[in-house]
Amino acid sequence: MTFTAKDKASILVEALPYIQEFYGKTIVIKYGGNAMINDELKEKVMQDVALMKYVGIRPVIVHGGGPEITGFLKKVGKQSSFVAGLRVTDAETVEIAEMVLDGKVNSEIVNLLNHRGVRAVGLSGKDAGLIQARKKLATVYEGDTSRKVDIGYVGEVEQVNTSILEDLLDQDYVPVIAPIGVGQDGESYNINADYVAAEIAGALQAEKLLLLTDIEGIYRDFHDKDTFISTLHLPEARAYIRDGVIAGGMIPKVEACLTALDKGAGKTHIIDGRLDHSIILEIFTSKGIGTQVVR
Amino acid sequence: MTFTAKDKASILVEALPYIQEFYGKTIVIKYGGNAMINDELKEKVMQDVALMKYVGIRPVIVHGGGPEITGFLKKVGKQSSFVAGLRVTDAETVEIAEMVLDGKVNSEIVNLLNHRGVRAVGLSGKDAGLIQARKKLATVYEGDTSRKVDIGYVGEVEQVNTSILEDLLDQDYVPVIAPIGVGQDGESYNINADYVAAEIAGALQAEKLLLLTDIEGIYRDFHDKDTFISTLHLPEARAYIRDGVIAGGMIPKVEACLTALDKGAGKTHIIDGRLDHSIILEIFTSKGIGTQVVR
Amino acid sequence: MTFTAKDKASILVEALPYIQEFYGKTIVIKYGGNAMINDELKEKVMQDVALMKYVGIRPVIVHGGGPEITGFLKKVGKQSSFVAGLRVTDAETVEIAEMVLDGKVNSEIVNLLNHRGVRAVGLSGKDAGLIQARKKLATVYEGDTSRKVDIGYVGEVEQVNTSILEDLLDQDYVPVIAPIGVGQDGESYNINADYVAAEIAGALQAEKLLLLTDIEGIYRDFHDKDTFISTLHLPEARAYIRDGVIAGGMIPKVEACLTALDKGAGKTHIIDGRLDHSIILEIFTSKGIGTQVVR
Amino acid sequence: MTFTAKDKASILVEALPYIQEFYGKTIVIKYGGNAMINDELKEKVMQDVALMKYVGIRPVIVHGGGPEITGFLKKVGKQSSFVAGLRVTDAETVEIAEMVLDGKVNSEIVNLLNHRGVRAVGLSGKDAGLIQARKKLATVYEGDTSRKVDIGYVGEVEQVNTSILEDLLDQDYVPVIAPIGVGQDGESYNINADYVAAEIAGALQAEKLLLLTDIEGIYRDFHDKDTFISTLHLPEARAYIRDGVIAGGMIPKVEACLTALDKGAGKTHIIDGRLDHSIILEIFTSKGIGTQVVR
Amino acid sequence: MTFTAKDKASILVEALPYIQEFYGKTIVIKYGGNAMINDELKEKVMQDVALMKYVGIRPVIVHGGGPEITGFLKKVGKQSSFVAGLRVTDAETVEIAEMVLDGKVNSEIVNLLNHRGVRAVGLSGKDAGLIQARKKLATVYEGDTSRKVDIGYVGEVEQVNTSILEDLLDQDYVPVIAPIGVGQDGESYNINADYVAAEIAGALQAEKLLLLTDIEGIYRDFHDKDTFISTLHLPEARAYIRDGVIAGGMIPKVEACLTALDKGAGKTHIIDGRLDHSIILEIFTSKGIGTQVVR
Amino acid sequence: MTFTAKDKASILVEALPYIQEFYGKTIVIKYGGNAMINDELKEKVMQDVALMKYVGIRPVIVHGGGPEITGFLKKVGKQSSFVAGLRVTDAETVEIAEMVLDGKVNSEIVNLLNHRGVRAVGLSGKDAGLIQARKKLATVYEGDTSRKVDIGYVGEVEQVNTSILEDLLDQDYVPVIAPIGVGQDGESYNINADYVAAEIAGALQAEKLLLLTDIEGIYRDFHDKDTFISTLHLPEARAYIRDGVIAGGMIPKVEACLTALDKGAGKTHIIDGRLDHSIILEIFTSKGIGTQVVR
Repeated sequence: MTFTAKDKASILVEALPYIQEFYGKTIVIKYGGNAMINDELKEKVMQDVALMKYVGIRPVIVHGGGPEITGFLKKVGKQSSFVAGLRVTDAETVEIAEMVLDGKVNSEIVNLLNHRGVRAVGLSGKDAGLIQARKKLATVYEGDTSRKVDIGYVGEVEQVNTSILEDLLDQDYVPVIAPIGVGQDGESYNINADYVAAEIAGALQAEKLLLLTDIEGIYRDFHDKDTFISTLHLPEARAYIRDGVIAGGMIPKVEACLTALDKGAGKTHIIDGRLDHSIILEIFTSKGIGTQVVR
Repeated sequence: MTFTAKDKASILVEALPYIQEFYGKTIVIKYGGNAMINDELKEKVMQDVALMKYVGIRPVIVHGGGPEITGFLKKVGKQSSFVAGLRVTDAETVEIAEMVLDGKVNSEIVNLLNHRGVRAVGLSGKDAGLIQARKKLATVYEGDTSRKVDIGYVGEVEQVNTSILEDLLDQDYVPVIAPIGVGQDGESYNINADYVAAEIAGALQAEKLLLLTDIEGIYRDFHDKDTFISTLHLPEARAYIRDGVIAGGMIPKVEACLTALDKGAGKTHIIDGRLDHSIILEIFTSKGIGTQVVR
Repeated sequence: MTFTAKDKASILVEALPYIQEFYGKTIVIKYGGNAMINDELKEKVMQDVALMKYVGIRPVIVHGGGPEITGFLKKVGKQSSFVAGLRVTDAETVEIAEMVLDGKVNSEIVNLLNHRGVRAVGLSGKDAGLIQARKKLATVYEGDTSRKVDIGYVGEVEQVNTSILEDLLDQDYVPVIAPIGVGQDGESYNINADYVAAEIAGALQAEKLLLLTDIEGIYRDFHDKDTFISTLHLPEARAYIRDGVIAGGMIPKVEACLTALDKGAGKTHIIDGRLDHSIILEIFTSKGIGTQVVR
Repeated sequence: MTFTAKDKASILVEALPYIQEFYGKTIVIKYGGNAMINDELKEKVMQDVALMKYVGIRPVIVHGGGPEITGFLKKVGKQSSFVAGLRVTDAETVEIAEMVLDGKVNSEIVNLLNHRGVRAVGLSGKDAGLIQARKKLATVYEGDTSRKVDIGYVGEVEQVNTSILEDLLDQDYVPVIAPIGVGQDGESYNINADYVAAEIAGALQAEKLLLLTDIEGIYRDFHDKDTFISTLHLPEARAYIRDGVIAGGMIPKVEACLTALDKGAGKTHIIDGRLDHSIILEIFTSKGIGTQVVR
Repeated sequence: MTFTAKDKASILVEALPYIQEFYGKTIVIKYGGNAMINDELKEKVMQDVALMKYVGIRPVIVHGGGPEITGFLKKVGKQSSFVAGLRVTDAETVEIAEMVLDGKVNSEIVNLLNHRGVRAVGLSGKDAGLIQARKKLATVYEGDTSRKVDIGYVGEVEQVNTSILEDLLDQDYVPVIAPIGVGQDGESYNINADYVAAEIAGALQAEKLLLLTDIEGIYRDFHDKDTFISTLHLPEARAYIRDGVIAGGMIPKVEACLTALDKGAGKTHIIDGRLDHSIILEIFTSKGIGTQVVR
Repeated sequence: MTFTAKDKASILVEALPYIQEFYGKTIVIKYGGNAMINDELKEKVMQDVALMKYVGIRPVIVHGGGPEITGFLKKVGKQSSFVAGLRVTDAETVEIAEMVLDGKVNSEIVNLLNHRGVRAVGLSGKDAGLIQARKKLATVYEGDTSRKVDIGYVGEVEQVNTSILEDLLDQDYVPVIAPIGVGQDGESYNINADYVAAEIAGALQAEKLLLLTDIEGIYRDFHDKDTFISTLHLPEARAYIRDGVIAGGMIPKVEACLTALDKGAGKTHIIDGRLDHSIILEIFTSKGIGTQVVR
């Protein structure tokens, strides 16, 4: 389909109220899934971030990188064992995870953004002490009981030190963050990127947190497309998790939304990163996409 | 025609290179003709200016108002005589012109912009001594000879004092300027708005001057649509005026472009203000519209 | 009478304590009456404002223009009807009022100040949304009952948005304000200039509000010069209005003072604009002039 | 003679052009002679400086203190010998001179200004290395020959380090400077205050240097009041010194003016400090007083 | 003893934690006693202050000068009488005290610091109204009763106006303060320098107050070296004064500490100025020296 | 050996002139060799950098990482071939090099500095486009002729874009830079860290470039300790390279020094990183260590 110049002009104008609304606001994007693997989608995410920057938004990117870590562990012939679905992460594993996340995935995103005229700066949780972390134990359920198991250098966020983010944002850089935290003794922790994005959105009092996922959003019944949920409020979301309506891979996404809202983010959105320009669709069009979790 | 969300997203992204190009740049718009009379077009110009502002451009508006002045003179029963096609402007006439331009046309534009969330401030050439003017004589041709005739308070720009414009632009206001200049003794002069826009574009070293007109642009032969000129260079433009290719109402437009370029503006554009969103079409799409006059 | 250089020096020095007292303070002047009609007085007011500016005061001018509006309405053959002494102001009338106030009276004051080396900028309530207004109904008394009558585009101040004033004052401009407000739908309202000045003095937390009038001040008994009141306190002023001691044209003046004080202005003064340099007399000499209304 | 309020107002207004002219300008005042001894005159100088400050001038005071030093040396029973009219200044003498100038005369001036609401700060040439000095030899003439004689800690200005002055002026303080310089090895030098004022006026590129003296100005013939010189140009001044028209105590005054002009001051004035408010008379009235030495 | 380069490096590194701790903090030093008389010690204090400045501390010096005043009074043959151990200070005495303190002692310290590359500025309590003072009466005990006696221009601090200190500190100057205060009528008061330092430390909310004394610190029993007190808390200190454990010359020192703590200083230290580099020892080494009085 | 507090104080004071000299200056450190492998030395380098930061120096770290890259390539079973002593660097190799340098070596240094209270931020040449690079061909000598050979993603610096460094330094961060450059098409290049440090020192107009090496400095004759060169001037250095006096591994070090000096660095130093606190020894002690290459 081709557009006339006139069509283009009206669409630009239609975006104006959204541009006004988010002018000067901070939006945190958890970047992961297909949008990070598929080259065409990747290209479109970069365009979206560049557009955000130019119309006055302050974007902050937090990325994952699970598949790339798995690929690299395989390459070095490192076997992984799993507990409760989580990879046991010994010292060598976390070192490789950090190398892959910070030295490969992060660098590539930074590079792509710089190529689009946006001044991006890559950070990990170590830079200027950005993410203070602590060990997170896995929970193993056995019948009616559960117990906590140490699975190594898997962490959770203890504190976000936003000063480096604010300094960079104020000078018009786009921070790109690898989800590595640093512990009391300087040890590295691999942290779920959804949670890192949530904590950063909270700590920055961001206007929005956008989680790019590989699903369309949340369904009341996963098998019935008619049960799609556009908006989910905090109490409802908590109830759905408790009652098992929200389950499996959706749990960390929704929990990340709850955390971000609890700590001060404005709104949170679980969107389908497999769509072209899903970020722009969410921010600049009247309908929005995916499921929003709000207060 | 309706657009899918996806269409909209791609069009926004297509605008990105133009947004980057003009980020932080000053663009002077001469606003006049049908775009100022037709309510729908007016609305669209306001949207265009708001969009420019929000994507980081610094717009400056200079407006005309001939028809409104004529209307008001009629209302007060004031007869006008003409010399060489120019209205003889006595003290009462210039007073009414100033009232209409500054107290009506200017206020209305300011008001419309404020309603779109843009902080506009109306100025005339008197505010903070913005436009120093002097009397402009009319040239009357009689056979092979010509003579200069005093037609009253019709002026030309002597000097632009940009400090108030820079102070307002730096604080994110949109200046809207009525084409009234002030003489040595404090007397008012009515000045052709095209020339005022040109002088201001030059004095501000603006990136672009856009003249909104009621024609599509310039033709080598007005009767032959195939002779449309997209780009005109300075020497060519001067030759065309000398040789009569450019004539009549086009002369002041092209002269304004030449003046702006001579005094430091980057590019100048004669565009068709009768088109919806002509400003956005010119700035944000690859083809541009109308005739550009460049160095 | 001629002064020796020595005389002049001592008088300058005598002004020192007043200069110190008002250094850096904002003073709002309601400019109107004879001081705006008589050319010699006008000249002196301009000198006074220039002096204020140069000794470190931040003056803000609000002007009226009733007689000029009346004159112009007559010129265009517009008949006015009156309700409760107020002009019924239809759309055409308010348009003319705005043209006269903003495009003629305001421009002229700005021009005169610029000629004295002061950088003045003319504003109406529309610029940057300075004065949000709403319709004001007239009160018609019939025997013991009263009813409200819609007399068109006569307004009252709903809110003052001081940002443009502060930005201009901080950059050493003198704002000159025409008493036109803007309603919810962008419609213009003509507002009594005394009230506009009062609201602006309050919103700016001004040190003083000076109302230039055509009387010497307030008398307890208008026929007995010995009953002149130098200082009036808030409760007293309210009582005098209630009891009819203050009546007629004095009511809006005193009400303006009360409003300014209620909203945060420091002191208010009703002074005789028919005196040469009445502003300087009030500010820089030990005795002050006119009637001050204070907390 | 008493003035009406009206008189006062016109005189204030008459000063306006002078206030405009010197707004934001630096004026260096050499304060000494009778104006520093007579309590009434002293009071008036302080008022003048306060007025200057409040109307936007940046005054800098350099003071002398010869008579006070002499008085104190007498008190401690210190005998002085003289060479070529200059006091031989041994280590004890310069120590006492510094104590008197910095610890007494300077403190008193600072104190008087602070009492008038001006924030004055006392400095000597030692503070932040303000005045780098070197020894100045006396010239003894014997018949047709002359020789240089070491008379101890009498100095001349080598370099003025204006940073502390600029920092204080920018923060609205009035610097008051005692004419003590500091040598390479940290030793103190007593320097002629006229020269110190001249060097500081030059280094600050001051608008004016005012030297308060005990004479009316310069006469071509000291005995003939009709030969008073209002304006003296550089070459003329040099010729008059060479030819002995300017002689005796006038030489250092005129030389100070020449130095200040050579180093970048705008104008210099030798004025009669015995007149009430001589500073104000010079700056704020049309006639000026005394003799000006200009380029 | 000689150090290898390696030794030096480790010692510099050992100081690092102390440098970090005091970076950007204000430390007030009461400079007096032997450290001000002995040339070698004096040199070392100056080095210490320079070092403080360069490692990011904001030092403020308050000096005494009793012995120098006494010496000078003797020189001018001025007899002093004493009441309750305090010198009766008539007008002539306070004038000499001010000259000595401000014009000699202060200037010399400023000069020594400037010679070490530190930009020092000398102040007395008169500069910019730094120290507002009032008369302090002496208390004479006669048997069980006491009475207050006027001993002239001996003062106590009424108020510290820190603006000049903050302006100078923010611009990287080191203020050096002579303990002269100024009364309501502009009269000078000689004030105990310990108290001045305490009030200034309080007013600046200084991190530390260091009092350089001629003793090692405080002993519970002056004759028994084993009773040395390293740390004294506020209530304890008050009890010791009440019970006479702290007596004689120690009282004003400890009272100064209490005043500083009460008004907002962080910690106070009574240290032995007779030790080489006592300031550095206190600040940059783990042990500290002398007695600290803390909350 | 133990030091008394007094010893410590004198050593701190001895460092004062060096602290003054480098206050506010930028010093670039190429960190590599043993100082990066040996844990104890590593710890000492971190202390040295922290000390530099706290005494007002602006340190910038550029690190190498050859041995770590080699180790990792071995781990993944990647075979390397060599041309002219340089590793042929295919796409997979440069990806691993980047991961190791940016995601492991860089992160670790950043982490160690943060643990010492210094706010360090890791960068690679990709961040904000810091290092623009281009392919560097290897030179293969065959008899008398030489030819250029493409060995893949080995690069040289084309341009340094210092804005991110200046923004971080101005906000008191310590930049730590991995020697990865980015080409026209976004491809990564591995660059010799000595050259990167040199280019950055030049681009920042750094006061000093310190190259930490595993030798004591430069000898005229490597076998004769008596031929040690303390200072080498530019022309001499060039001659020594040409004549083979400087050969082998010393060539890139000296070339780096020459490049830094050519591009604007003040001085350059080749120092022995195997010594404890070699950085502090070079900067803060009178003797300096190693070989300095100067203009």
